[in-house]
Amino acid sequence: MRVRKRKGAEEHLENNPHYVISNPEEAKGRWHEIFGNNNPIHIEVGSGKGAFITGMAEQNPDINYIGIDIQLSVLSYALDKVLDSGAKNIKLLLVDGSSLSNYFDTGEVDLMYLNFSDPWPKKKHEKRRLTYKTFLDTYKDILPEQGEIHFKTDNRGLFEYSLASFSQYGMTLKQVWLDLHASDYQQNIMTEYERKFSNKGQVIYRVEARF
Amino acid sequence: MRVRKRKGAEEHLENNPHYVISNPEEAKGRWHEIFGNNNPIHIEVGSGKGAFITGMAEQNPDINYIGIDIQLSVLSYALDKVLDSGAKNIKLLLVDGSSLSNYFDTGEVDLMYLNFSDPWPKKKHEKRRLTYKTFLDTYKDILPEQGEIHFKTDNRGLFEYSLASFSQYGMTLKQVWLDLHASDYQQNIMTEYERKFSNKGQVIYRVEARF
Repeated sequence: MRVRKRKGAEEHLENNPHYVISNPEEAKGRWHEIFGNNNPIHIEVGSGKGAFITGMAEQNPDINYIGIDIQLSVLSYALDKVLDSGAKNIKLLLVDGSSLSNYFDTGEVDLMYLNFSDPWPKKKHEKRRLTYKTFLDTYKDILPEQGEIHFKTDNRGLFEYSLASFSQYGMTLKQVWLDLHASDYQQNIMTEYERKFSNKGQVIYRVEARF
Repeated sequence: MRVRKRKGAEEHLENNPHYVISNPEEAKGRWHEIFGNNNPIHIEVGSGKGAFITGMAEQNPDINYIGIDIQLSVLSYALDKVLDSGAKNIKLLLVDGSSLSNYFDTGEVDLMYLNFSDPWPKKKHEKRRLTYKTFLDTYKDILPEQGEIHFKTDNRGLFEYSLASFSQYGMTLKQVWLDLHASDYQQNIMTEYERKFSNKGQVIYRVEARF
């Protein structure tokens, strides 16, 4: 998700250290301590403006959520939503998805969400897709054995690519949805992007894949 | 594919023993001999009225094709197409897809096609779907190591099911198409059913999966 640069975004994040973890390297291995409980930890890589992570946190108060985005302005909008919600089970992290091993210990993350990741449609940009094998290496490292990635997108090319990429990595597809909103999947929380594009008639794809 | 019973279908098949193998158990292990060459053998399970298998045989004269269907009348229409085409690299087989090990030796089939198989949408009929694990056992047996199944369908539920079924069986998805006719896949041969339903705007799904 690209958004215009937001004035004061940096200060906004700095002023809310309870929600925005400022020295993420120091959080590695300490996430349960930071949340103050031993509930499972679910992360969303590319959390955008935060509608999904905030909705999930409200729906599941016994799970800890961490929203991760590399874009300062985007994360500052997510912070607005988190502040509005007042949920105690969310943290935000301004870091890059390729370096997650710096911020999470082996097996420290119980479940991972990827939602509407940048499709990088050109073949030469394959390595930038968040479902490319080098990213899967990182995810595998921070998830437990048989850890899961739950991925949704409206981008056909990225979904085709990702199903094959997961499979060729040795992951197992637990379940696939080729039109999520037409299915009987009840607990879906929509992202901002999802709401906009499904209103335009775009099909939403989803997969749960297990290492 | 269901069709009305065709009068004289049985005689039609019997009168063309060059194309329709009448004692298929005796063909087991002898398919290269029957074709009179050592070209690869590709089979289509559920070959319907034969448009796919005939088109493939014309497109690829150096591959031997065997169309398999359990319905007498349906196979008799396929025979019409084979006779029209005059292709030397096609045989037809009136047998059930669950008993393929009776007609093919281990590794005797080089590649397998499943096209627009009956979706059996009810959960209680899962075992009848041609991508259910017991069918995969049979296919694995007659294919070589790393043998492939190429599957296409317009049925969303069956495709979702089959991707997960292949994956949970331990197969690898080589490539997935979520809108075959919008893709750059060039060599597609349409089945009768595919032509009809894609003309109505139905999306065609395709996957190449490897054991």
